[in-house]
Amino acid sequence: MVGQSFVKLLLSHSTDLYNDYGIKPKVVACADHKGIVSCNQGLDLDRLLNVKKKKRSVIQYGSNTDTSGILDVIENIDAEVVIELTPTNITNGEPGKTHIIAAMRSGKNVITVNKGPLALEFPSLMELAEYNRIAFKFSGTVGGGTPILEFAKRCLRGDRIISFEGILNGTTNYILSKMYEGLNFTQALRDASEKGYAEKDSTLDIDGYDAVAKLVIASNLVMNMKSTMSDVVRTGIRDVQRTRVMNERKKGNAIKLIASCDGKNLVVKPKPVSTKDPICVDGILNAVTFTCQHSGQQTIIGKGAGGMETASSILRDLIDIRNMIRS
Amino acid sequence: MVGQSFVKLLLSHSTDLYNDYGIKPKVVACADHKGIVSCNQGLDLDRLLNVKKKKRSVIQYGSNTDTSGILDVIENIDAEVVIELTPTNITNGEPGKTHIIAAMRSGKNVITVNKGPLALEFPSLMELAEYNRIAFKFSGTVGGGTPILEFAKRCLRGDRIISFEGILNGTTNYILSKMYEGLNFTQALRDASEKGYAEKDSTLDIDGYDAVAKLVIASNLVMNMKSTMSDVVRTGIRDVQRTRVMNERKKGNAIKLIASCDGKNLVVKPKPVSTKDPICVDGILNAVTFTCQHSGQQTIIGKGAGGMETASSILRDLIDIRNMIRS
Repeated sequence: MVGQSFVKLLLSHSTDLYNDYGIKPKVVACADHKGIVSCNQGLDLDRLLNVKKKKRSVIQYGSNTDTSGILDVIENIDAEVVIELTPTNITNGEPGKTHIIAAMRSGKNVITVNKGPLALEFPSLMELAEYNRIAFKFSGTVGGGTPILEFAKRCLRGDRIISFEGILNGTTNYILSKMYEGLNFTQALRDASEKGYAEKDSTLDIDGYDAVAKLVIASNLVMNMKSTMSDVVRTGIRDVQRTRVMNERKKGNAIKLIASCDGKNLVVKPKPVSTKDPICVDGILNAVTFTCQHSGQQTIIGKGAGGMETASSILRDLIDIRNMIRS
Repeated sequence: MVGQSFVKLLLSHSTDLYNDYGIKPKVVACADHKGIVSCNQGLDLDRLLNVKKKKRSVIQYGSNTDTSGILDVIENIDAEVVIELTPTNITNGEPGKTHIIAAMRSGKNVITVNKGPLALEFPSLMELAEYNRIAFKFSGTVGGGTPILEFAKRCLRGDRIISFEGILNGTTNYILSKMYEGLNFTQALRDASEKGYAEKDSTLDIDGYDAVAKLVIASNLVMNMKSTMSDVVRTGIRDVQRTRVMNERKKGNAIKLIASCDGKNLVVKPKPVSTKDPICVDGILNAVTFTCQHSGQQTIIGKGAGGMETASSILRDLIDIRNMIRS
């Protein structure tokens, strides 16, 4: 999904990318779960999209189908950037982790929106990137299209971020918003599934693992913590009672799944938030408040997921890498 | 106020600035409404702060008092950056405009938090900066310490901002928040004055001129519009009736002074906003929502003013300039 959205973006933005940033990206290889297609002259993106949509796999693209393994291609192809988009696996980070490491070792810059490898091994991946002098960008891992990490790193320079907290998972926020309106947990989960906001196996969201992974990535990048998933004290929303939500509502609060980092402690848990607090957003929105030493509290709010939104984060990272290569 | 806060920041952050950014800024001249003090070896910042606090003017600093005019000093002193902090004047932009132009013409980079010159002559000032190949930074003019302009320029790259709207003036937002709680306009204005949020002559805030100036700056920078104050359709909050606020409240809305830009039309006027909308913030907060082609709506919220907050924006600009000089 994200891959296809990204290719659509490249097609629709090609003029802007060239005029505004001097970039004319060429896609020299593309892999999915069935195989790989590659072409040193650059793949025809319209054809690639069509093949994927109609025939379900890029290997139907044509005569250029690559029969070597994915790692072979990552290591040996002549490319500046590898974009790693396999699904998040928070148990061992695979196969993303192996792809990323192979790309780094062969001197390629890496963009990923896969949370698994970073949530499990942030410090060692950053070291490997530095050692190989390549750029490693992952702004889509936290906040999807909402540039939460970029904001913290770029916009708050010269200030000291003391702590941050926020809503990092849209699915649970949708469910809790529905419970605030009066549904119980089971009803709200069913509603989220019907709307396509919760997957069949929604434990990654419901039990807080997705928020934990994002919190780990943000705490490493923003606060220079050397943390991993197991450092986070985690409580999901499965046991949030409708009566508790209603009692808090009477006090002017909503229960939200809040991920927080104070530079030492990492916690994900449902807790009451004043409805007047800027992070108290509804539905599938994400929201994070950074508390800074001088500029005070700054909140950033936006959609945390979606194919096109996340694809826009990849384009952002690509432009950054281009600028870094140039300077 | 902002100047003193900035000097305090330089003092308290000197170690960080050196370690994190390789900067060791030297203040070679300082002017206030009474005169100028300068020293090529760098002024003693502790002494400077003390003199300003106890004796009201920097000219009491000591033997280094400069008897030449301010323009002479701006043009002839050996400095990389001029920080222009005179009060905003939206009639003709003076004396800030003349200071900025003198600095640019003598090849100095410029940082300002003064809205006047930019609100009146954004395009020509940007051209002058480009012609003289100097950096011109003004992130504190919109949002104070909240990096609204930075966010739009840096974090939303690769996407297209279609429109933006928000609350750009904290004083009027405080007054409207109090009216939402039941006060009438006169009572709310008095409350804001007592708390120090409204000045004696509060027409710049109340009648919307401050929001207009910020909207003009943002529309030029973010949307490349060549606009000025007179292009904005302006309505202040003086005539907002308590009954209207209460009627909207019953419908789940609050009246807010909204500044909006759709790439063509620039408007500042009080209008109803759903209390569920992320930009519907309380008190002296500022909030802006950017609507982007791919990443959807992104909202940024923070305190829009305050001496230390605005001073932090100057430090941010200074670090940026340092990085630009280096690369």
